[in-house]
Amino acid sequence: MKTLITGGTVVNATGTAQADVLIDGDTIAAVLAPGSTLLGFDLAGNVDEVVDASGKYVIPGGIDAHTHMQMPFGGTEASDTFETGTRAAAHGGTTSIIDFVVQYAGENILDQYKLWHEKAAGNCAIDYGFHQILSDVQDSSLTAMDELINEGVTSFKLFMAYKGVFLSDDGQIVKAMQRASDNGSLIMMHAENGSVIDLLVKQHLERGETTPYYHGVSRPWQAEEEATHRAIMLANLTGAPLYIVHVSAKQAVEQIAAARDNGQNVFAETCPQYLYLSLEDQLGASSPEWGDFEGAKWVCSTPLRSKHEGHQNHMWRGLRTNDLQVISTDHCPFCMKGQKDMGLGDFSKIPNGIGSVEHRMDLIYQGVVMGEISLPRWVELTSTTPARMFGVYGKKGVIQPGADGDVVIYDPNGHTSIGLEKTHHMNMDYSAWEGFEIDGHVDTVFSRGRKIVDENQYLGRKGDGAYFKRGLSQYLI
Amino acid sequence: MKTLITGGTVVNATGTAQADVLIDGDTIAAVLAPGSTLLGFDLAGNVDEVVDASGKYVIPGGIDAHTHMQMPFGGTEASDTFETGTRAAAHGGTTSIIDFVVQYAGENILDQYKLWHEKAAGNCAIDYGFHQILSDVQDSSLTAMDELINEGVTSFKLFMAYKGVFLSDDGQIVKAMQRASDNGSLIMMHAENGSVIDLLVKQHLERGETTPYYHGVSRPWQAEEEATHRAIMLANLTGAPLYIVHVSAKQAVEQIAAARDNGQNVFAETCPQYLYLSLEDQLGASSPEWGDFEGAKWVCSTPLRSKHEGHQNHMWRGLRTNDLQVISTDHCPFCMKGQKDMGLGDFSKIPNGIGSVEHRMDLIYQGVVMGEISLPRWVELTSTTPARMFGVYGKKGVIQPGADGDVVIYDPNGHTSIGLEKTHHMNMDYSAWEGFEIDGHVDTVFSRGRKIVDENQYLGRKGDGAYFKRGLSQYLI
Amino acid sequence: MKTLITGGTVVNATGTAQADVLIDGDTIAAVLAPGSTLLGFDLAGNVDEVVDASGKYVIPGGIDAHTHMQMPFGGTEASDTFETGTRAAAHGGTTSIIDFVVQYAGENILDQYKLWHEKAAGNCAIDYGFHQILSDVQDSSLTAMDELINEGVTSFKLFMAYKGVFLSDDGQIVKAMQRASDNGSLIMMHAENGSVIDLLVKQHLERGETTPYYHGVSRPWQAEEEATHRAIMLANLTGAPLYIVHVSAKQAVEQIAAARDNGQNVFAETCPQYLYLSLEDQLGASSPEWGDFEGAKWVCSTPLRSKHEGHQNHMWRGLRTNDLQVISTDHCPFCMKGQKDMGLGDFSKIPNGIGSVEHRMDLIYQGVVMGEISLPRWVELTSTTPARMFGVYGKKGVIQPGADGDVVIYDPNGHTSIGLEKTHHMNMDYSAWEGFEIDGHVDTVFSRGRKIVDENQYLGRKGDGAYFKRGLSQYLI
Amino acid sequence: MKTLITGGTVVNATGTAQADVLIDGDTIAAVLAPGSTLLGFDLAGNVDEVVDASGKYVIPGGIDAHTHMQMPFGGTEASDTFETGTRAAAHGGTTSIIDFVVQYAGENILDQYKLWHEKAAGNCAIDYGFHQILSDVQDSSLTAMDELINEGVTSFKLFMAYKGVFLSDDGQIVKAMQRASDNGSLIMMHAENGSVIDLLVKQHLERGETTPYYHGVSRPWQAEEEATHRAIMLANLTGAPLYIVHVSAKQAVEQIAAARDNGQNVFAETCPQYLYLSLEDQLGASSPEWGDFEGAKWVCSTPLRSKHEGHQNHMWRGLRTNDLQVISTDHCPFCMKGQKDMGLGDFSKIPNGIGSVEHRMDLIYQGVVMGEISLPRWVELTSTTPARMFGVYGKKGVIQPGADGDVVIYDPNGHTSIGLEKTHHMNMDYSAWEGFEIDGHVDTVFSRGRKIVDENQYLGRKGDGAYFKRGLSQYLI
Repeated sequence: MKTLITGGTVVNATGTAQADVLIDGDTIAAVLAPGSTLLGFDLAGNVDEVVDASGKYVIPGGIDAHTHMQMPFGGTEASDTFETGTRAAAHGGTTSIIDFVVQYAGENILDQYKLWHEKAAGNCAIDYGFHQILSDVQDSSLTAMDELINEGVTSFKLFMAYKGVFLSDDGQIVKAMQRASDNGSLIMMHAENGSVIDLLVKQHLERGETTPYYHGVSRPWQAEEEATHRAIMLANLTGAPLYIVHVSAKQAVEQIAAARDNGQNVFAETCPQYLYLSLEDQLGASSPEWGDFEGAKWVCSTPLRSKHEGHQNHMWRGLRTNDLQVISTDHCPFCMKGQKDMGLGDFSKIPNGIGSVEHRMDLIYQGVVMGEISLPRWVELTSTTPARMFGVYGKKGVIQPGADGDVVIYDPNGHTSIGLEKTHHMNMDYSAWEGFEIDGHVDTVFSRGRKIVDENQYLGRKGDGAYFKRGLSQYLI
Repeated sequence: MKTLITGGTVVNATGTAQADVLIDGDTIAAVLAPGSTLLGFDLAGNVDEVVDASGKYVIPGGIDAHTHMQMPFGGTEASDTFETGTRAAAHGGTTSIIDFVVQYAGENILDQYKLWHEKAAGNCAIDYGFHQILSDVQDSSLTAMDELINEGVTSFKLFMAYKGVFLSDDGQIVKAMQRASDNGSLIMMHAENGSVIDLLVKQHLERGETTPYYHGVSRPWQAEEEATHRAIMLANLTGAPLYIVHVSAKQAVEQIAAARDNGQNVFAETCPQYLYLSLEDQLGASSPEWGDFEGAKWVCSTPLRSKHEGHQNHMWRGLRTNDLQVISTDHCPFCMKGQKDMGLGDFSKIPNGIGSVEHRMDLIYQGVVMGEISLPRWVELTSTTPARMFGVYGKKGVIQPGADGDVVIYDPNGHTSIGLEKTHHMNMDYSAWEGFEIDGHVDTVFSRGRKIVDENQYLGRKGDGAYFKRGLSQYLI
Repeated sequence: MKTLITGGTVVNATGTAQADVLIDGDTIAAVLAPGSTLLGFDLAGNVDEVVDASGKYVIPGGIDAHTHMQMPFGGTEASDTFETGTRAAAHGGTTSIIDFVVQYAGENILDQYKLWHEKAAGNCAIDYGFHQILSDVQDSSLTAMDELINEGVTSFKLFMAYKGVFLSDDGQIVKAMQRASDNGSLIMMHAENGSVIDLLVKQHLERGETTPYYHGVSRPWQAEEEATHRAIMLANLTGAPLYIVHVSAKQAVEQIAAARDNGQNVFAETCPQYLYLSLEDQLGASSPEWGDFEGAKWVCSTPLRSKHEGHQNHMWRGLRTNDLQVISTDHCPFCMKGQKDMGLGDFSKIPNGIGSVEHRMDLIYQGVVMGEISLPRWVELTSTTPARMFGVYGKKGVIQPGADGDVVIYDPNGHTSIGLEKTHHMNMDYSAWEGFEIDGHVDTVFSRGRKIVDENQYLGRKGDGAYFKRGLSQYLI
Repeated sequence: MKTLITGGTVVNATGTAQADVLIDGDTIAAVLAPGSTLLGFDLAGNVDEVVDASGKYVIPGGIDAHTHMQMPFGGTEASDTFETGTRAAAHGGTTSIIDFVVQYAGENILDQYKLWHEKAAGNCAIDYGFHQILSDVQDSSLTAMDELINEGVTSFKLFMAYKGVFLSDDGQIVKAMQRASDNGSLIMMHAENGSVIDLLVKQHLERGETTPYYHGVSRPWQAEEEATHRAIMLANLTGAPLYIVHVSAKQAVEQIAAARDNGQNVFAETCPQYLYLSLEDQLGASSPEWGDFEGAKWVCSTPLRSKHEGHQNHMWRGLRTNDLQVISTDHCPFCMKGQKDMGLGDFSKIPNGIGSVEHRMDLIYQGVVMGEISLPRWVELTSTTPARMFGVYGKKGVIQPGADGDVVIYDPNGHTSIGLEKTHHMNMDYSAWEGFEIDGHVDTVFSRGRKIVDENQYLGRKGDGAYFKRGLSQYLI
């Protein structure tokens, strides 16, 4: 299959080019000056399909570096399977995900790694890689880290919260960081002080404060700021590189900025929910169906933050100042019926997570429209930097010869209305983004040269997506 | 002229690609997967020349955003003409310069602008653009700013030092910044407190401290830090974007970092001399010919800083943390005989300046070898970001279709010995970099598709270089 | 005259004591456990007067370290003479002022110093000392500094604003600082960027923005922050100690805090107006008599700051954190009729100044009532630290044997209503503090052992007050 | 007993006074102008003793707010009993200690409190108060806090290290802080990350790095900085005031300074060992008797820090900038024979502690001689601020009527040679301060009016010292 995309504006991380893109088989064969000919040779006449991208952006497919497909959590499982979740991602212009292999405390890491391959293999619409979650770091965990690097899993996520489930204590974190410092891998951190949060949750529940709103109240910014600083200092001690996931508190950004100014290898992502949504939205949420439990739709961790404290604006600023380098979704969807409603009367039982894998590219493009970020920065945050950060740049994250044919045609004159009944392909019975309007549209999506989405139609097949081994972070080598 | 560069590693700001580059006439026509054919079409057989870049880097030509060719200063004139200086630049892999049109206090800006065109036109080996120096800002200066933007001059340099020559007082600076805030142009700042320096110079001379070493002593880091902060605060007041030139003090970097963290549009460059050379080098310098006046070779402003205070390491760190975004040379060469020696017995009479336009790409590549920065960062600092910062990205600063055919083939297995008798093509009777050894080599240089340097031979002609109009800084739009 | 003050709570800077105070002649002879006897000796029976201070605070008399009695400014003269101003001060519990000898550019410093002695001698109700203003620092200024230190003038005020009147350029400031670094004196600084302010004033007037409100708008916080940082950096360069006067912008406090954290000898005062009043008060001010020129009553420099930006709360915080060490008034009163009204139609012609010398002790005591500062901190900020800072501690600023009998009995159960017709003894035709209510009252005031105010009655005589020579700042030795 | 101290220089926290001090029974009756008479009354003739303090300093007795007399630790007990330790303190000019009631995890707090009273009662040479250690905070701990406040124990120490012994986890810390925020008490914190330290200790021992030097290496500054920041953030969350004990790392001071600048109630002490001694001293230590185990003499936690990193100078600076407010000793002596030597071959078994209670006043006075701090600051750091911080000001910490007659006559012309055979009265078989020479001398010590030390002779009796109830910290009310 040979495809020539003509007349579009190619957007890369550093700027734009008026250029045609030739995809030959799985990969991009050439990026060319517009015109469909080269040295007199008729390109258009020698390909299978010519796609007209005039007036549109041609961008590298989105990379969502933080998803949790069918993740077991709190007695249930994230509602998107690798099949439904990756198909929804494709609809939204995301052509790669990096999902998390889960090891709960006590489980065997390599067994879990195999299990996750079984879950994903043959089911994905787009390419996928894995991070590995390490809970309760043991000596065997360190060995597993080395082995997994050979498997293309080069980043390891630790938790400073969720005692008895995910939590590693500080000594354990240091052990993993010492190993990462040796083997060149990247430590990802869920940075919230779980010990404090567990106490506050208990105190709120004892006071009868049980609605979803108290989920956020019981996870104050101090718990995030503290853990972020602690993670940074442990990384400083060990020399390990550090990537903080789902940053939502402005004070955490300040800690990250200070460490980065100081030359320490500290990186961080935020997610669309921390840019657009707030604790006050959750407090005010109500519906005939769910009453004040409506707020459960936005229960995620780290939680939504107060608008009055200016966290959301600070996240946009952090994206501009490059104190935040990546936008992921932390996609972890649960339905209201049968899942979120486990927490009726006790917010601590609500499965934590929001589903956004389908909307990330649109939601962040809207930031371009709003003037929060530039057009190249959109591509950088959603594709190029994730690729560089997680060791797949060159194959992913850029429109250049030799790269995988993961290409999205995005129409700045299109429009997207987000909502359950509208663009929604995720396996959720509600949308966390109901009513959001986007001044742009994902027109066509290529995954390794195959057109898998066109005009909102899914053209691909289950199993199109392949596992990709990742190298070490390019930010560290 | 059609050229196919094959087998090389294309280095852009975000990473590398194994790719061939086809130049057709002035511009890059395509970047292609290696192999010399496309869809069966024999590319190699349809070009004028095939250049083998196997094992070598193919990079966008360097952009030196801060040069002063044949600049009148202190009763003499910088010793490189546009002809000699740009030819030397070409030898060093730099294919664009942005030089400064000088307006001394009292001169007519637009007259000066025309004069500089006359100096450059027909003489340059490579393409060139202009910044405009505004001295002693008057209302007419503001009008001239608007007019010059139409001429492609979109950045304006002000001075906080050199009273009666270049200095604008703070109110004048604010006026220019207000205009820049309105018209979208960029304010460049020489940030040193001239009033303090003038006093210290006078005091040193009165004490009989007249050797070149006292040039640096009389321009302490406090004078740079203070002016940097002041410039930032005036920019904050007016909303103008700000670019600090030739940063050498670590405390200035800290001020810049703080402003950037805060979301203010503040940018900065450093120069090779502030990365490699120190005040102590200057103090210790001596030669049979010049005695302790030898140090005059490195008299520049801002001055070389003390190694004991760690400024040099801090500059490298600032380049890594992106608190410094650009490396320019501030190329402003003067010969020892007949020029620098005007300051025998009085360091304040030594013409300020160092010549480095020929060596910037090599000297910074050595930073890659030393592990200070990454390979893509080398290209970003020396080409891509200067292009984006000064409104020529797309034409310059990147290897992509439609870009000018400004391409350098750099051999990481080559070697370059710097010195007057070695690689030196600048019109200077000494080298500020005598004895520096580089683990790489500029093999071949194309300027708009023409091979102008190959194997150390200059193949171009006077006047090859053309003036380029610049748009507004892409960092601001 | 021997006086025994019994039953009161003596408040010093570090805490309180239940103690009697015996004044014998000019000085305090003893501080004693309550009871009026000592080792069986009947104290009460051997003094001229016993004053019952039960339930009241006995504090060292206030020291107002920043006043401008009958200062010539802008074609008029501050409306309080040394006679009226010091009598008003006495009413308010202030027993010492340090006034500024004014040298305008071109005047002879020592002549001015003599002239000020002539103005004050024989006229003052309370003791007084002098700072010296140095305008346009010349070599003769440096000599004068040394001479004045012998006269007990150990602090020298420079201006970064008021070009042609007070302004010293940065080189001149450095010269004065170099001398201060040598002779141990203290540099006081009016820290506003005059060059920027002059431009903004001109621009506002050109736009027809002529009301008093624009006085504040034309002196933005950036102008204060910038000058504060610049002064700190020049002091850093020279090793001189620095005292910033009348700080009103929170960003200036941040600069001061940073320098102090860094161990630099930087000190600062704020004034009651920056704690209680705001730019918005001024904007909204209107009266039948003056219309929107009413705001002229609060035209002072530095100006009132916006409440929306939180400067006022930040000043209180700075007083708690000791980033601000002193509260002075910058007392510089002008009447509305015949003085302030010179600026009708042109805010830049309004004489700058507010009169508060009478109310400082009350206004800051109200901060104790409000919970902003502690009771000992009230004494420390208004008396003890000014005494230490300006070299008179031991004689002034503390209740201890050997100290001058400058003692105030303050009733926390009393009440003070401030306003023109109420407590006002200053020579002003309005009160900047009209309507302020204080939960305390100055009952009795002793100056060097003489009861000069009692129950709102003035009992002293013109000329009671004497000049005091000051030593070097105790903070520096 | 009536005593008149004549002719001396009384030093208080804000300055000095030439004054006589009359002690009548337990308390100071008066502070008087020199001369031995008052209103003609012959004071000298009506007292039991007149002490001539001419040429000497008369200061409030030292308060050591951090001692551990006969504390059980690691299978042994601190070698000074309340008897020997307080007698040694008296010799050194310290007239009050605040010792720590120890509750190990699992013990009953109030039982321990009673036990500590039994240990101290009837044995002390000087007055004493108690802090309470809370280990492993339980609900019963919170109740005990309230009860102990009524007993005059108003400060509670928590540990972030020593798992299974002292450690409270972060949730437990928050619980105690919430209670402190309610009841007005002060939380003291041992701020080191125990989890990290436990790991590093284990790793060093596994590598055979067993000498005392590795004690310090295994407790890096990052562990202190991290815990300090964490404690600050938990205090921020709860609104509790916080006092960090034995700060030794400059980075911890920076965290404290930042919180204080921000207006948070954070306080801190350092100890003489962190001002004078270094990790390098410990590394180099060797003796015929102990070989490289000699370094065990200085094993304490927090550990001695590297001189190369500048921690010691930074501590002095912190004392000047008031980022450190108190100097205590953390007196916790162990003999080399039979105690420290438990750690031969395993540094982790060395009992942690240094004995300095006898030398604190001298060692810090030497800082005055060296120009590090001023004379009043000496008194403030060692007596006045501890008194204010821990709720005994007025009775202790100041020379004023009504205060306890805890007075020290200190001779600046005397000399003190510190060492085991010289001034040492502590029950230790070595001196951590062997060879230190002090340019001053404790001449005479009064405790509640009784002369207990004179010319190095102990004149008091076991049991002179009484327990003092403390009020809430004056810094918080």
